[in-house]
Amino acid sequence: MSVKAVVLLLLACFIVSIYTRGNELNNLLFNGDYEFIDLTHPFDNNTVYWPNSQQFIFIKKTEDLGNDDSWYAANDFAAGEHGGTHIDAPYHFYKDGLHVEELPLDKLIVPLIVADVSSKVNGDPNFVLHKGDLDFMINDNMGKPCVIIFKFGWSKYFNDRKKYLGHVDNSDKLNFPGLSGEVAEWITSAYKNIVGIGVDVASIDPGSSKDFPVHKTTSRNGLYVIENVNFSRDIPDNGCTALVLPMKIKSGTGAPLRLVAICPKQRK
Amino acid sequence: MSVKAVVLLLLACFIVSIYTRGNELNNLLFNGDYEFIDLTHPFDNNTVYWPNSQQFIFIKKTEDLGNDDSWYAANDFAAGEHGGTHIDAPYHFYKDGLHVEELPLDKLIVPLIVADVSSKVNGDPNFVLHKGDLDFMINDNMGKPCVIIFKFGWSKYFNDRKKYLGHVDNSDKLNFPGLSGEVAEWITSAYKNIVGIGVDVASIDPGSSKDFPVHKTTSRNGLYVIENVNFSRDIPDNGCTALVLPMKIKSGTGAPLRLVAICPKQRK
Repeated sequence: MSVKAVVLLLLACFIVSIYTRGNELNNLLFNGDYEFIDLTHPFDNNTVYWPNSQQFIFIKKTEDLGNDDSWYAANDFAAGEHGGTHIDAPYHFYKDGLHVEELPLDKLIVPLIVADVSSKVNGDPNFVLHKGDLDFMINDNMGKPCVIIFKFGWSKYFNDRKKYLGHVDNSDKLNFPGLSGEVAEWITSAYKNIVGIGVDVASIDPGSSKDFPVHKTTSRNGLYVIENVNFSRDIPDNGCTALVLPMKIKSGTGAPLRLVAICPKQRK
Repeated sequence: MSVKAVVLLLLACFIVSIYTRGNELNNLLFNGDYEFIDLTHPFDNNTVYWPNSQQFIFIKKTEDLGNDDSWYAANDFAAGEHGGTHIDAPYHFYKDGLHVEELPLDKLIVPLIVADVSSKVNGDPNFVLHKGDLDFMINDNMGKPCVIIFKFGWSKYFNDRKKYLGHVDNSDKLNFPGLSGEVAEWITSAYKNIVGIGVDVASIDPGSSKDFPVHKTTSRNGLYVIENVNFSRDIPDNGCTALVLPMKIKSGTGAPLRLVAICPKQRK
């Protein structure tokens, strides 16, 4: 091979390496091996909010055909920060915690671990998850940052408000599964790499909780909380990437969330 | 090598291949070569909305130290769909177009092309982008799905409402740069792989437009539009991945958007 040919070859390799470096992620992500799974309930007038809090209100404003047959439609809406599929920022339960717009993106885009405890819950609204229930070791992404979402099997009741919350309008009578304070203490002390915890129920504390130990422990330790996750589709326990992207409300204690998992396609 | 050793080796390879397949994306994404860039303006009482439309209203509701020294804070908010960093669904300007919650995730998570025309605009609010201005060929991601965002260099005026919109409160007197109908026709006919178009101004049509040809053309062709992109940080023209994740408003004509780019870290 001549010197000229070697130089040309090296140059070609250099150009290819520059090109592929920039596109390595896009090449992998869009090669057909991955799928995007939406873990978000839609926001509408039926979306589950805490009783007595500001519900989601959708206000149809303009929907018109113009004189020239052109179409224009736009709406307004109002909501509390903490309803539907949403995030709690640490400031929600801890005065020195971060507000929602301050959460760093490298804690919001992280590997996703799904801890499916739905067979233990088995539809029982009184179920409270204790450390002893986690007889399997939590897959903790080998110590690297990750978010863990507990699947209680409750998503399917989201459109049945009474079943989902345990009571329609009295927050003193709510009844649905949740985590024990013991589990929150254990995760925040033994798994420092877990940056956020999610659940497919209306609160990370059980519906009957009056003192919210899980909210307090997670907030104090800088973890965010995701509530009302939508598990209407199957999702692998690990190997997915979580996109936890809340509305960027300045000084917000929480916000509506678009929660998406990027997962390796399951082989049929 | 014995038969037993070969079998063990094959078994080990099989296990490793299963493990790495699931984690290939996470291994690449979190290997330190990528960074997450937020292209979203925060929502607060100063966020830019169209004059006479519902502005973002932040309602501080509860912020209290309880009797046991525990903290609790939560707020409400109200907004129009089309202010701040937001997405227009095709239904905004086309009766048969998709609503915001119907936009498929594989059009919302796509390679990102940034077309930086800020040196041509040069701060001129009367600038309208024509096909002739695009003397560089649009990098169209080689025919694969992508979103293109035009950078007019307008983000830096976002907190100066008069400069950003051209007028504070009269929508008939707005004045800021935008795309021409010609460019919209060209993109939607010649680049069928472009699934959405973004701008760092308050509308994809110029501020002075009265008939909104770009909105009409993009909506009719099924493209979404992103407005008020925040380019306060530098970002490569290509090689990034766009995460275009709007609030999932059922039947929405648009929604507040969390817009993030995943980019190869720039070598210093």
